[in-house]
Amino acid sequence: MANLFDDLPNATDAEQFEDLLTRPGVRIERIVSTGQTTPEDKPYDQPHDEWILLLAGAARLWIDGEGEHDLRPGDHLLIPAHRRHRVTWTATDAPTVWLAIHFD
Amino acid sequence: MANLFDDLPNATDAEQFEDLLTRPGVRIERIVSTGQTTPEDKPYDQPHDEWILLLAGAARLWIDGEGEHDLRPGDHLLIPAHRRHRVTWTATDAPTVWLAIHFD
Repeated sequence: MANLFDDLPNATDAEQFEDLLTRPGVRIERIVSTGQTTPEDKPYDQPHDEWILLLAGAARLWIDGEGEHDLRPGDHLLIPAHRRHRVTWTATDAPTVWLAIHFD
Repeated sequence: MANLFDDLPNATDAEQFEDLLTRPGVRIERIVSTGQTTPEDKPYDQPHDEWILLLAGAARLWIDGEGEHDLRPGDHLLIPAHRRHRVTWTATDAPTVWLAIHFD
């Protein structure tokens, strides 16, 4: 057994990605951010659906056609394949922890 | 967008189960418990792998061959198919919220 919040990697220099579990067609990933954002000219555009759950911290997410969402712990949403999106803000005072489930 | 912790169903009488997302071979479920346990003579014995993440509250989980685990928020583990397991305790003073990912 492991805890998602124990020994969080330092993400002040760069976001930290860790696969927690992979299965055929599914990947569960923990992402730790501290202040990072997605470059405005390089939105994510993924070929697969992704389900996001914010676990700790705070973030703001822009989704094409929807605008910006302020995210707090417990917020979850599905980002369909090829829906462009960008992280436009993450908290700088403490780590923001995301759970991302990729349906590859 | 929705929040996992908003408008939690009252689980004092019975555990509350809600599917958050289903995809071929995968089901993401929220479970809310308040004091429930699994009957000792009726352990879970599922034909599929299940990944568990405790999101809020506190619980204790018995897993065949491993014994009991005390779970606090952030704890996660994989329960392989056909590994018998039982919830032996959940907090009674506040809801316990689980995320369960079933690899059906």
